[in-house]
Amino acid sequence: MKVLITGGAGFLGRRLGLKILERGTLAGADGRPRTIDRLTLLDVAAGEAIDDARVRTLVGDIGDPAIMADAIDAETEVVFHLAAIVSGQAEADFDLGMRINLDGSRLLLERCRALGHRPRVLFTSSVAVFGGVLPTVVPEDWPVRPQSSYGAQKAIGELLLSDYSRKGFVDGRVTRLPTISVRPGRPNKAASSFASGIIREPLNGEAAVCPVPPGTRLWLLSPRKAIEALIAVQELSSDRLGDDRVLNLPGVSVSAAGMVAALGRVAGEEVAAWVRWEEDATITRIVGSWPGAWNTDRATALGLAGDKDFDAIVQAYVEDDLAAHRPLAG
Amino acid sequence: MKVLITGGAGFLGRRLGLKILERGTLAGADGRPRTIDRLTLLDVAAGEAIDDARVRTLVGDIGDPAIMADAIDAETEVVFHLAAIVSGQAEADFDLGMRINLDGSRLLLERCRALGHRPRVLFTSSVAVFGGVLPTVVPEDWPVRPQSSYGAQKAIGELLLSDYSRKGFVDGRVTRLPTISVRPGRPNKAASSFASGIIREPLNGEAAVCPVPPGTRLWLLSPRKAIEALIAVQELSSDRLGDDRVLNLPGVSVSAAGMVAALGRVAGEEVAAWVRWEEDATITRIVGSWPGAWNTDRATALGLAGDKDFDAIVQAYVEDDLAAHRPLAG
Repeated sequence: MKVLITGGAGFLGRRLGLKILERGTLAGADGRPRTIDRLTLLDVAAGEAIDDARVRTLVGDIGDPAIMADAIDAETEVVFHLAAIVSGQAEADFDLGMRINLDGSRLLLERCRALGHRPRVLFTSSVAVFGGVLPTVVPEDWPVRPQSSYGAQKAIGELLLSDYSRKGFVDGRVTRLPTISVRPGRPNKAASSFASGIIREPLNGEAAVCPVPPGTRLWLLSPRKAIEALIAVQELSSDRLGDDRVLNLPGVSVSAAGMVAALGRVAGEEVAAWVRWEEDATITRIVGSWPGAWNTDRATALGLAGDKDFDAIVQAYVEDDLAAHRPLAG
Repeated sequence: MKVLITGGAGFLGRRLGLKILERGTLAGADGRPRTIDRLTLLDVAAGEAIDDARVRTLVGDIGDPAIMADAIDAETEVVFHLAAIVSGQAEADFDLGMRINLDGSRLLLERCRALGHRPRVLFTSSVAVFGGVLPTVVPEDWPVRPQSSYGAQKAIGELLLSDYSRKGFVDGRVTRLPTISVRPGRPNKAASSFASGIIREPLNGEAAVCPVPPGTRLWLLSPRKAIEALIAVQELSSDRLGDDRVLNLPGVSVSAAGMVAALGRVAGEEVAAWVRWEEDATITRIVGSWPGAWNTDRATALGLAGDKDFDAIVQAYVEDDLAAHRPLAG
């Protein structure tokens, strides 16, 4: 069978792809494990090449029906839909966010529906669907009230995935992801970009700015655990999922100050000292509207697990990403 | 200023139009009362003509950008967006529902945004945004979980209106309407059509079928009170509304059996005897997924009121609609 990852050149998409190639099988449209003959990585720009005969790299825009028709065909049984315009950019360029995050997701669903074999489609949603006055731990049954266009577009995507699933057009799954930290590479246009930057840059001996107040709580998940969860949710049987297709993934709740303290514990105080505090009103407004934690009983009952604590997340980053590039001084 | 009503040939739209003409003014884009120079009634088919020089009847499809451009211009300060493919039809014809309920609403919002003067846009949402296991009285803070495509499309419309308002593109207001009963005229393709039919048809000396079990609770509002509420919400200041643009309108909670009992009390047992009970699985599934009541504290605090009880609703129908056509036997 064929598997598609949109956003396949992004760091999460690429890593998910590598993990899937390593496994060699995934639950297919009927839920039974199937051998992966083809893994298509679709993105707006080509990523670093992967030397594997099963990989097909496709460069294009998910808002383009021709690209969608090319990316998804009768043998495509599994789609991981990760591609999105990130929060900061979707807020700055409303039309672009609508075109990719809403129209693109809809084109993808329509293409899957047209094939008629009910592929499994996993859509990644976000903390950003929540907003307004939130309890310290957001319950499973909390209404979405996005305070950003990105959040609104993700919430609409959740509704579309759920209705397409209810109608039997696709076998949809939505994972609401905590903010992913620590992302390797460079800063991006997500409002939450700093949640990786304040760890990554200091570990590389570079200054980093934290644009939210020290007390701002974040709900975080490491890339390693995120990828485990995406695959686990894709493989869940429809029966175990039931009618409610939206799952809040586990995370760890930590304040911005607590993140920097963890960095100090793992890498040394001199590393943590690279972080400067300089509040940015827009980022504080957007990130401050997100939950600092949510209830994960349902995810836990389904066997999903997050990280132990933020120290473990920093440690995992050092092991998975930093060690390969630079020996740790601390 | 100009006022637009989409769905203006429908019974609620037409009546809303007549009430607005009678008033002669409405709060404009800046919130101050303005004289209505033009009332455009847009619908897919022409309704009964209204003899008033201020009225313009426009026949067309809200999914058509040319019609939208014609219907909304620089002088349009108020839009009542009532047009929709109803629940039963949106479930039977998914693509039509998406084209009108989602794409049409988006075209309307885009047209308003392009004008740049932030018109007031009132969007009518529905009990159908809720679903799943519901408490007897759904709290204000209950998550939407639609179990029909109509409900999903309305929930998406709520998110769009809210985000367009947050961005300052429109001054949006969403009224979640209870099921409107008693609608005059003929049955339509709404799953809730029976909620009018089981009162209206017997009062006309005709048999009616109730397709849901007698114990099914409905959340109802008379056309009279619905129109009062739509105008009142349109006239609320942005400050009083605040950031949360979605309002649950008051209603009365009554079982299907209770509706027929009220008909008996108002019009006589021989009238109520025209109702036959014959369950329809699809209608029972859709209507059974809707709330039988919701909390209305916020609406009440904003000065909105529903009907006293269902007897009063039947009585209002007899006065407003039936009396004009046929003397009541009971």
